[in-house]
Amino acid sequence: LHKTLNSLQQNKRTVLGLMSGTSCDGLDVALLEIQGSGLQTRFRLLAGKNYSYEPQRRQALLKFLSLTENNARILSQLNFYLARIWAEIIALFLKEHKLSAQDVDVIGSHGQTIWHQPQAEYFIDRPLRSTLQLGDPSVLAQLTGIPVIGDFRVADMALGGQGAPLIPYFDWLFFSAFKENILAVNIGGISNVTFVAADGAFDKVQAFDCGPGNMLLDQVTQHFFNVAYDAQGRLARQGAFSQKLFDSLLKHDPFLKQTPPKSTGREQYGKDFMDVVLKKSKQFKLSPHDILHTLTRYTAYGIYENYRLFVAPRHKVQKVAVGGGGSRNIFLMVMLQEYFKEAVVQSTQSYDLDDDFKEAIGFAILANETLHGRPSNVPQATGASRPAVLGKICIP
Amino acid sequence: LHKTLNSLQQNKRTVLGLMSGTSCDGLDVALLEIQGSGLQTRFRLLAGKNYSYEPQRRQALLKFLSLTENNARILSQLNFYLARIWAEIIALFLKEHKLSAQDVDVIGSHGQTIWHQPQAEYFIDRPLRSTLQLGDPSVLAQLTGIPVIGDFRVADMALGGQGAPLIPYFDWLFFSAFKENILAVNIGGISNVTFVAADGAFDKVQAFDCGPGNMLLDQVTQHFFNVAYDAQGRLARQGAFSQKLFDSLLKHDPFLKQTPPKSTGREQYGKDFMDVVLKKSKQFKLSPHDILHTLTRYTAYGIYENYRLFVAPRHKVQKVAVGGGGSRNIFLMVMLQEYFKEAVVQSTQSYDLDDDFKEAIGFAILANETLHGRPSNVPQATGASRPAVLGKICIP
Repeated sequence: LHKTLNSLQQNKRTVLGLMSGTSCDGLDVALLEIQGSGLQTRFRLLAGKNYSYEPQRRQALLKFLSLTENNARILSQLNFYLARIWAEIIALFLKEHKLSAQDVDVIGSHGQTIWHQPQAEYFIDRPLRSTLQLGDPSVLAQLTGIPVIGDFRVADMALGGQGAPLIPYFDWLFFSAFKENILAVNIGGISNVTFVAADGAFDKVQAFDCGPGNMLLDQVTQHFFNVAYDAQGRLARQGAFSQKLFDSLLKHDPFLKQTPPKSTGREQYGKDFMDVVLKKSKQFKLSPHDILHTLTRYTAYGIYENYRLFVAPRHKVQKVAVGGGGSRNIFLMVMLQEYFKEAVVQSTQSYDLDDDFKEAIGFAILANETLHGRPSNVPQATGASRPAVLGKICIP
Repeated sequence: LHKTLNSLQQNKRTVLGLMSGTSCDGLDVALLEIQGSGLQTRFRLLAGKNYSYEPQRRQALLKFLSLTENNARILSQLNFYLARIWAEIIALFLKEHKLSAQDVDVIGSHGQTIWHQPQAEYFIDRPLRSTLQLGDPSVLAQLTGIPVIGDFRVADMALGGQGAPLIPYFDWLFFSAFKENILAVNIGGISNVTFVAADGAFDKVQAFDCGPGNMLLDQVTQHFFNVAYDAQGRLARQGAFSQKLFDSLLKHDPFLKQTPPKSTGREQYGKDFMDVVLKKSKQFKLSPHDILHTLTRYTAYGIYENYRLFVAPRHKVQKVAVGGGGSRNIFLMVMLQEYFKEAVVQSTQSYDLDDDFKEAIGFAILANETLHGRPSNVPQATGASRPAVLGKICIP
């Protein structure tokens, strides 16, 4: 413990960030050199790599993660199993980068989400909300020989928060250095935004999910074109816009204009929503390219509309910094720029931020904050009653 | 974090220990004042109390803890639920003792064991062992406003240990102060022993399960007399010893003389073993009192025989310090003294140790060790490959 805290005396720390997404397809590893903490944080990404699980391993994991296939025995085993395979991945990562465990001061690990229930449900004798991440940080610490800080979400949820989003704290630290009003947009399956003010004021930070990210687009390309996603938006570009489809979808999308705090997922933009898309497209006789074109605009609109309704009344932005897979969809980026007339829409690459590893970087930064005894949730984004020091500190 | 560690600078710390046993009938709370760490640890029990769960709550918990009734959703909710009700119990405990959260420096929490699998089982692509305790320490820290160190067993198991027993570390700290060769015996459902040498040498510590504790006796009193246990051994005292039953049981008990490290439970001394007891007793025409008498001797024999075989060849003991419910069975204590001819058999009360709260005290002491960055497993007892700093440190 003391040795770990002694690393705070050093000018620089080496921190490994780990992210294991809900899709459970692998582990993102980011190695950072970090100085300072809070708004004085300065960091450099030394290396980042995604390690995909072999198909057999992924299938086994997904099976055990499904609600009907798990129980205490399975989850206990999974908790150890994930820590073990991550320890092996870390050993490989260190070897590939000619490093040893002694070169790393601390690991920040998100864990594998197996259950996340921000809405209360009656349990035994009270309404209760909870979240559960596996891949035990104490097991990981013992196996790697490196201190681990993990399991960041539970503390926020204990305080009435949704336990998510947590990345806005990182967005605040990172984008406030640029001294402009910035809307950080992340386009994964779902799109979300973090507003960071030019003066870096923590209480001005806003963060919430907007609506669909790549989720609708990916479902359409997979359905009609049998490809995973619309690379660079090439397919969408070949279609035409349908106002009728656009308007029909808006009617089926109460989430889009819902007042924050709010978060969503497959429950809103999954199969049921796609059924509406397909039914209406058939009715309006649209081609698959037309559907994609319209949904791309719909996605851009969702992001802009949330900005217009919930951020712009208080703060106009100069920059829109787009990360996530969606930032590589050029057609989507063009549409975003059309909507955001008075701001410059850029990829986060322009900020020298490698968004392939943004979340892994984020959890390395959160570990650094915890090591400094600093809270790192954004209460106005999660709904927590107060700031909290997140994570469990595990010493090998 | 720094505030927590600052408490190390103080001469004394106030530490709350929590134990929630596998029977899931309530929470033991022990409040300690602790000075120093390691062999220099000195502590005083300021207060101890058991809080039983209401029958309805206990039934609901037991239902969800059963393997067929749980899954990720239930376990995630249970993890938060237990932390919430423990936070309420702690608030009550503090109020009853006219204390506030600020008066407590740290909490050591064992957690509720929901799965413990020290034997490897093939899982996905490897043999795997694991243990899972619920009652999230990070949630507990946020709700109480007190730093919590919890989840001690996983680190030891990650290093190849059985994750148990952990109390021998406490036995070592506590009994080595008396500068005699002491066999600390705990008689719960199962009996276990810890040997502590007069010179306090850590590598001379031995600890393992011996055989039945109260488990056989309690099953017989419940079966024949419809009482929970044989208070003070009064029923057993009225019967006669049966050598035939004794010898028959020995034949069905490979565990008793098995070489340590070893641990056991209901799988060895539960229903199957009782079936043998009842069948043989019928065959030998024994009265219920005779059965109890014989089983009481059998229990004492199991403890002595393990000492004779595995401890005595290296170290003779001067004192046998008996704790747990079995220490209040006067007849059992008399029989133990008959076996241990050259040692004095005493209750742990003689050592001013309140064994009602021994485990809660033990986890307060383990938390204190972790706070000092000291390992607190006993590798020769658990089978771990090395000493490890146990537990996850959670800051409110």
